[in-house]
Amino acid sequence: MADLAETMKEAVTGLGKHIPLPYTVGNYLLARLKELGCDMVFGVPGDFNMEFLDQIEDFDGVNWGYNTNELNAGYAADGYARIKGLGALCTTFGVGELSAVNANAGSLAELVPVVHIVGTPSTVSQADGAVLHHTLGNGDFNVFMRMFKEVTCAQASLVPENAAKEIDRVLRECVIRRRPVYIALPTDVAAKRITTEMKPLDLRPTPNPQKAEDEAVEHIMKVLEKAERPAIMIDGCSQRFHVEKEVREFIDKSGYPVFAAPMGKSTVSEFHRQFRGSYVGTLTPAPVREEFESRDVVVMIGAIKSDFNTGGFTFQVPPERLIELHSYHTKVFHATYEDVGFAGILKRLSECVTHRPWTFGPAYEGGTQGQQGDDAQEIRHEYFWNALGKYLGAEPHIVVAETGTSSFGTSTQKLADGSRYISQVLWGSIGYATAASLGAAIAGRELDKPLRTVLVTGDGSFQLTANEMSTFLRHKLTPIIIIINNDGYTIERYIHGPDRSYNRTAMWKYAKSLEYFAVEQDRETYPIFGLQTRVEHKGDVEGVLQQAFAMKDAIHVLEIVMPKMDAPQGMVKTAEKTAAENKYNGDS
Amino acid sequence: MADLAETMKEAVTGLGKHIPLPYTVGNYLLARLKELGCDMVFGVPGDFNMEFLDQIEDFDGVNWGYNTNELNAGYAADGYARIKGLGALCTTFGVGELSAVNANAGSLAELVPVVHIVGTPSTVSQADGAVLHHTLGNGDFNVFMRMFKEVTCAQASLVPENAAKEIDRVLRECVIRRRPVYIALPTDVAAKRITTEMKPLDLRPTPNPQKAEDEAVEHIMKVLEKAERPAIMIDGCSQRFHVEKEVREFIDKSGYPVFAAPMGKSTVSEFHRQFRGSYVGTLTPAPVREEFESRDVVVMIGAIKSDFNTGGFTFQVPPERLIELHSYHTKVFHATYEDVGFAGILKRLSECVTHRPWTFGPAYEGGTQGQQGDDAQEIRHEYFWNALGKYLGAEPHIVVAETGTSSFGTSTQKLADGSRYISQVLWGSIGYATAASLGAAIAGRELDKPLRTVLVTGDGSFQLTANEMSTFLRHKLTPIIIIINNDGYTIERYIHGPDRSYNRTAMWKYAKSLEYFAVEQDRETYPIFGLQTRVEHKGDVEGVLQQAFAMKDAIHVLEIVMPKMDAPQGMVKTAEKTAAENKYNGDS
Repeated sequence: MADLAETMKEAVTGLGKHIPLPYTVGNYLLARLKELGCDMVFGVPGDFNMEFLDQIEDFDGVNWGYNTNELNAGYAADGYARIKGLGALCTTFGVGELSAVNANAGSLAELVPVVHIVGTPSTVSQADGAVLHHTLGNGDFNVFMRMFKEVTCAQASLVPENAAKEIDRVLRECVIRRRPVYIALPTDVAAKRITTEMKPLDLRPTPNPQKAEDEAVEHIMKVLEKAERPAIMIDGCSQRFHVEKEVREFIDKSGYPVFAAPMGKSTVSEFHRQFRGSYVGTLTPAPVREEFESRDVVVMIGAIKSDFNTGGFTFQVPPERLIELHSYHTKVFHATYEDVGFAGILKRLSECVTHRPWTFGPAYEGGTQGQQGDDAQEIRHEYFWNALGKYLGAEPHIVVAETGTSSFGTSTQKLADGSRYISQVLWGSIGYATAASLGAAIAGRELDKPLRTVLVTGDGSFQLTANEMSTFLRHKLTPIIIIINNDGYTIERYIHGPDRSYNRTAMWKYAKSLEYFAVEQDRETYPIFGLQTRVEHKGDVEGVLQQAFAMKDAIHVLEIVMPKMDAPQGMVKTAEKTAAENKYNGDS
Repeated sequence: MADLAETMKEAVTGLGKHIPLPYTVGNYLLARLKELGCDMVFGVPGDFNMEFLDQIEDFDGVNWGYNTNELNAGYAADGYARIKGLGALCTTFGVGELSAVNANAGSLAELVPVVHIVGTPSTVSQADGAVLHHTLGNGDFNVFMRMFKEVTCAQASLVPENAAKEIDRVLRECVIRRRPVYIALPTDVAAKRITTEMKPLDLRPTPNPQKAEDEAVEHIMKVLEKAERPAIMIDGCSQRFHVEKEVREFIDKSGYPVFAAPMGKSTVSEFHRQFRGSYVGTLTPAPVREEFESRDVVVMIGAIKSDFNTGGFTFQVPPERLIELHSYHTKVFHATYEDVGFAGILKRLSECVTHRPWTFGPAYEGGTQGQQGDDAQEIRHEYFWNALGKYLGAEPHIVVAETGTSSFGTSTQKLADGSRYISQVLWGSIGYATAASLGAAIAGRELDKPLRTVLVTGDGSFQLTANEMSTFLRHKLTPIIIIINNDGYTIERYIHGPDRSYNRTAMWKYAKSLEYFAVEQDRETYPIFGLQTRVEHKGDVEGVLQQAFAMKDAIHVLEIVMPKMDAPQGMVKTAEKTAAENKYNGDS
């Protein structure tokens, strides 16, 4: 974890030099966000946050997100945070903040550090208990903060006297614990001046207790030295807690074969010579599954044991063969070392592990491209994902995949080294991907080595948050947007009600999205409009993908029409398990 | 309030005959909704609610809403409830329900009875504390219900053993208290059978305590008999608690002049011979304001004393001249009679009040149509609302007005007798009107005397919930949709930051909404597509309004382009007051 502080410190670009002393409360907060690498605040204006929005607009190096609604802003902040390390959104009291609460809950479930700043009524109105618009009319101004306590890890209500200290406290919690936080900023406080001197934030987590760490390392090393077929399994918290570097070092130093859970995808290159495949319990292809489950010891880094991340709780390695390294504790078989976190442990293990110079056979490649019979003109999943995978494997992108056919389809594709993969495996809120990819695309453009974003979503999911398409245009972004049109909610159809009308969505003109959300005469201010195509035949897929990936300075919308009940195999099996769990165990 | 039970009982259409005995839990709930006049459940499918959605689809007389997202479903249920007396939505656990929480909070603030049914994980998974998708991953399955406790007045978690009793309890609370309620329905419980016999719901509220009511009536009558210039003021709770009939009887029996607050609009016909105008504190036009404020006694029915409802707290009649009749208490000057509600009181007053056979001069008419200079080609507010008002005054409609220029613009227009007016004066969540008008339009079609819906919204607000346009088409509805395009959030511009870029929205092709949200080849299944017009010149307004109101069996979208900083006068003044309340009282 020490490296996190380093990473964050490196992100400071001109801290302090942008803002005049004494700071306003709002500027202090913005300078802190900037210090932590957050250059954009997403959100929607409202009458209680505009004082702060002025400050954002005037602040050098932090920009405004121009979202169409608050839920989308929350998703965008989450997507941005997953790339840049911290995201932020700003909403107005009551009506604004509550619309974003689902996004915040998702950030909590998936361990994404997002700062939610809420512009609240003036301290005077609050003290009066006034029956203001955007309130419940009962004079209770704390009700929404109480609700957010359930889905954020720290909260602050700012007044000039406590602002600097409270901002620093909650931001530290946000970064250290990788969870969303909530800041209430009354409209009359944003512009108040404070004189607190701004020192770099102390982001050092409490170090591991030395003796416990020593003992855990000794215990692990004893196990590893004796192991005959050890392996490493990478899961979500290794990304979330930013120990990718430590993980890669341990992989290289140990020489062990490497597997990844769905939430661990893209932490380590899937083209790494030690990488053996994705493991999702009984959903795993047989060769990978056998190779993984036969290991005598597995070092599991950052496990998140949720249903979709474990093939419906079918992870098959028993505790007696499992070493679990977590953010803030360590487990060796049945022994738990509390407060011993993986950042410190991984460093120590890399120092002492004996390298095993194994050579591996070729890794399992999964379905190969074009398996679908050549005479079938319709576009089927077993063909499409491999066709897309060729481009995703060739060059790094940020790949944002919606829960459903898109996440299961992309999960089996190998992404090029340096790729970033975003999907809500645990929270699984449909509509997330479209708006999160806006945030990811902005973050990707801000990286030292910029990455282009590819969004893959379905028609049902797209409809929840489609209005955010216009914001891609406003920010002149150039993603590839792929909308799988299979006439409704196909993952739901596999869980329940395949022929029910509630699983059918209205048929929009998806391929016309750019036209609808942008006025033609303003085109010169927009990014180049690339493809806006509805693709119905297999024979056309390769051509449009080739063009979209080649035309890098344009935004593309590809509507891919697929059969209603076709789906990736992993999704079909997961849906069956979910259906069984939900099932009515008829007692009458 | 006794009449409420009557009204509800009248709404029973074949209770019991649609469903086989023994009932399932889901069918029991649906039969109760039907009994209370709720024929549609809005919502979005999710894997934890589909068992119940099957039951909706199969239940005779209750239909599914097919919304594009949950917030929209919540707004639609609220709009439906304001017309039919009860609304319902069904979402899935976590990801679904949280997206709708803003709508529920609005229903609470504005006293609208909405039943939120949440499909939750099976009782078995919950007992296991499983790390399921759509959870926070911590095994806590009660976190979302805790959040909803803050914005609903009653909650139930159903198991077969308690289902009938708990459903009846929360529905009674919902109807009696006119506030949203929350029902958690585990996926394995929906289809479980129960054998409870279903008797009509007892919706009689506790009657007023007799002696207290007698005393209050006597006190009020003594005041009224002595009053020389008494008046009646109608506010929001008279609609919400369904005492319109009692209010109208008291107006007729007393002969007193009648005024209305913004939230009381359309409770009583604005063409009633005793109706004198709308009163909004210092924002009221001088003739109406003088006539109202000079009254020696005002009987105020169902007051909601919020900022936007009182012209920024400038209601000018002191308590010494005020009789306040509330849902569950009564105030005569400074004396409060607890538990004495207006349903009982109004009946008594109508029986004993002495009729005053006043004749009134003509009521204040406000701006007349076409005041805007004839040479100006641009469409300005002082022209437009009067032009629209001519049609709204000629025939009853459901008018749904978005917070901002639309609500202030329509508030000064007299609506035809029998009209219903919907606007979120207190909660003021932008985006509400578009989705609420979907619910209102469905409810309006279900009325014995069907009413057509007119939505008036602005471009900024429209963008939050535009995706719901497709649902109008799915239900074959025929509203008139008017989108004021003034290039952004004009009400916000008047409060703060008139030239700030955060107040400018992206320029969509609003007039093309029907084309985008519907595929042309399916047109025969849709309602007739009426006008889809962008109107930029004053000279064209009259023609398109005439056509849209005349073509009753078609859906129309009218984009009205107006100058960025033009606005109704009431809005300008309200915004100034809000800006002053928010203001930074610079101490440095």
